[in-house]
Amino acid sequence: MTRWPTPLPMLRALELAGEAAAVGEVPVGAVVVKGGEIVGEGHNLTRTTNDPTAHAEIVAIRRAAEALGQERLEDCALFVTLEPCAMCAGAIAHARLATLTYGANDPKGGGVEHGARVFAQAQCHHRPEVVSGVGEAEAAELLRGFFAGRR
Amino acid sequence: MTRWPTPLPMLRALELAGEAAAVGEVPVGAVVVKGGEIVGEGHNLTRTTNDPTAHAEIVAIRRAAEALGQERLEDCALFVTLEPCAMCAGAIAHARLATLTYGANDPKGGGVEHGARVFAQAQCHHRPEVVSGVGEAEAAELLRGFFAGRR
Repeated sequence: MTRWPTPLPMLRALELAGEAAAVGEVPVGAVVVKGGEIVGEGHNLTRTTNDPTAHAEIVAIRRAAEALGQERLEDCALFVTLEPCAMCAGAIAHARLATLTYGANDPKGGGVEHGARVFAQAQCHHRPEVVSGVGEAEAAELLRGFFAGRR
Repeated sequence: MTRWPTPLPMLRALELAGEAAAVGEVPVGAVVVKGGEIVGEGHNLTRTTNDPTAHAEIVAIRRAAEALGQERLEDCALFVTLEPCAMCAGAIAHARLATLTYGANDPKGGGVEHGARVFAQAQCHHRPEVVSGVGEAEAAELLRGFFAGRR
């Protein structure tokens, strides 16, 4: 049996998720890629920075936009270990990201395939290509381990 | 006939929206209030800062959380001149804001009473008290003037 290899940007996002857990943040990592290069990356920082908006996706998008000096990331791809919430899905649409690849599903907090289903709304002004389940097992295991350790 | 006066924080949010227009940003302003004091405020800054997440609400929430040194704004109220989009509604839920007061409705981009209806989702972990239509005419006029001037 051949297992399709996890793309390098998702491996990096998983690494970032592990770094988040090590500093007491919910282990989610995100990477923005343009032309094969990482132009922005990050992990959850809500506790460290006292910023309720500092989810991995928002951190990576802000850093990528700053690095590229542009508000829109039309030719960029976002890799994130967990299904984005409504806030992050909205940010992905505003940033005009071309593709979104994520790992684990999040029935409780996700806003892509669950709940607000931001990209499925008629009024959504930009829908990225969405691929899910990439690095899913590793992403979910990181989250399980983190929350089990806090009980 | 007595017209109910617009609350001071909304007057300040409208003032901030005017400042946004003056620097070429979509005129939306937001103010976070705690115990009658403004603890964070801002207007759209997406163009100025090349940050697709820099909507007025996100700017005001981040500043308030930083000023108070806390991730959650449970005892705070947010005043914003326009119905928040899905991204901002998600941020409001994450920040655990007690109340949301907004001005104009936004059928095309709003995520509270339209589209994603973030707070109406079963999975939404925090719902603020929502009051709409406060300062509505002034907020809508600022937006109309801005977009008419760009045509």
